[in-house]
Amino acid sequence: MSNKKKAIVLSSGGLDSSTAMAMARQEGYEVYSLTFSYGQRHTWELGAAQRIAKALGAKEHLVIQISLRQIGGSALTDDIDVPKGRSEREMKKEIPVTYVPARNTIFLSYALSWAEVLVASDIFIGVNAIDYSGYPDCRPEYIEAFERMANLATKTGVEGKTRIRIKTPLINMTKAEIIQKGTALGVDFSMTHSCYDPSPEGRACGQCDSCLLRKKGFAEAGVPDPTKYVGGDI
Amino acid sequence: MSNKKKAIVLSSGGLDSSTAMAMARQEGYEVYSLTFSYGQRHTWELGAAQRIAKALGAKEHLVIQISLRQIGGSALTDDIDVPKGRSEREMKKEIPVTYVPARNTIFLSYALSWAEVLVASDIFIGVNAIDYSGYPDCRPEYIEAFERMANLATKTGVEGKTRIRIKTPLINMTKAEIIQKGTALGVDFSMTHSCYDPSPEGRACGQCDSCLLRKKGFAEAGVPDPTKYVGGDI
Repeated sequence: MSNKKKAIVLSSGGLDSSTAMAMARQEGYEVYSLTFSYGQRHTWELGAAQRIAKALGAKEHLVIQISLRQIGGSALTDDIDVPKGRSEREMKKEIPVTYVPARNTIFLSYALSWAEVLVASDIFIGVNAIDYSGYPDCRPEYIEAFERMANLATKTGVEGKTRIRIKTPLINMTKAEIIQKGTALGVDFSMTHSCYDPSPEGRACGQCDSCLLRKKGFAEAGVPDPTKYVGGDI
Repeated sequence: MSNKKKAIVLSSGGLDSSTAMAMARQEGYEVYSLTFSYGQRHTWELGAAQRIAKALGAKEHLVIQISLRQIGGSALTDDIDVPKGRSEREMKKEIPVTYVPARNTIFLSYALSWAEVLVASDIFIGVNAIDYSGYPDCRPEYIEAFERMANLATKTGVEGKTRIRIKTPLINMTKAEIIQKGTALGVDFSMTHSCYDPSPEGRACGQCDSCLLRKKGFAEAGVPDPTKYVGGDI
């Protein structure tokens, strides 16, 4: 058996979670990549997550099918239009319709279950409190409350064997800093996928909140943007 | 639209959650019953949950398919033997193999998601800290930590519109008291199902922790036990 410390890394196949995974590897963790198929429009991200896990040397990649569509309430799972062309001020003004109710809580709960089975002490999640889209479950106070709950929820936590830590290495980084960090760690961002509303061929729309933040990040980082946009020439 | 206050009630089709649902109805809530199909051995409980929701006048009954089997780690989802004939002292000595890692956390997370969509403020869970089987996620300190996290996780919580409450009306009741309460509220316990290892015909084994606690509860409550046991004459 390996003596390496184990970490679950929540992976969406996007820019943030891929960088978080590269950081976990750099810190010496054996990485268990966890992705969810939740009836999201952007099923492209499932393929991206698998390629990233392989490229970054994850020990295992698990895709969990969950049915958030049964619960509804989001533009990412329901037939609600994804907003386009919004300014950052507009993005931060209110919690957008792309918010999936309690999504990170559900994702972290599965990660906690898997962590307990694997006897992994750390769960990495690429949330960001700077260049984010106003989701409540991306804030440090939420993450701290989840971690506290997690250590009361589990056998390993209660028996004092393993303290569960929710690690958020990106939480105070700008999108540009995340891109620079990922680039330095060898993440191939052309594999990653961020768009909320891609074309059938998987090209990014370039106009949703996620595309706009990503574009701006590459520009500010001074790193060429490898994303294939609709109507773009690559 | 109804002006009634709404509650999600986690229902397993068992004795505890059915009594919790009856208590929610008595308190005047419009009840949304939430059940999980998680590859558990005891799929009988799914039918029981549906019958109970109907009998107790739930407004809606939602069954969410989740794949805890992919994660593993429990006698309830894996091919590990369910322990039989244990004394209560043995049950309380350690967390048993029937413990499903982070199960209540996953269940409550889905309930939280649905609560946010329905704008329901209350989530009922029939956990019990007295006649329980040593699960860490049945303790009051765990429930409090979940509630605190829930109010930081959600749009409604953050915007201060609705404070989410996790209600545990059974937490300090003995099994006998739960049976007496349910009986007084008209719960038909013959519809409920508790056994971890029922026969193919759905008869209770009578020997697993859950059966033993249930039998003792009926005896102490002075209420006839309507359960169909393997080898029994009803």
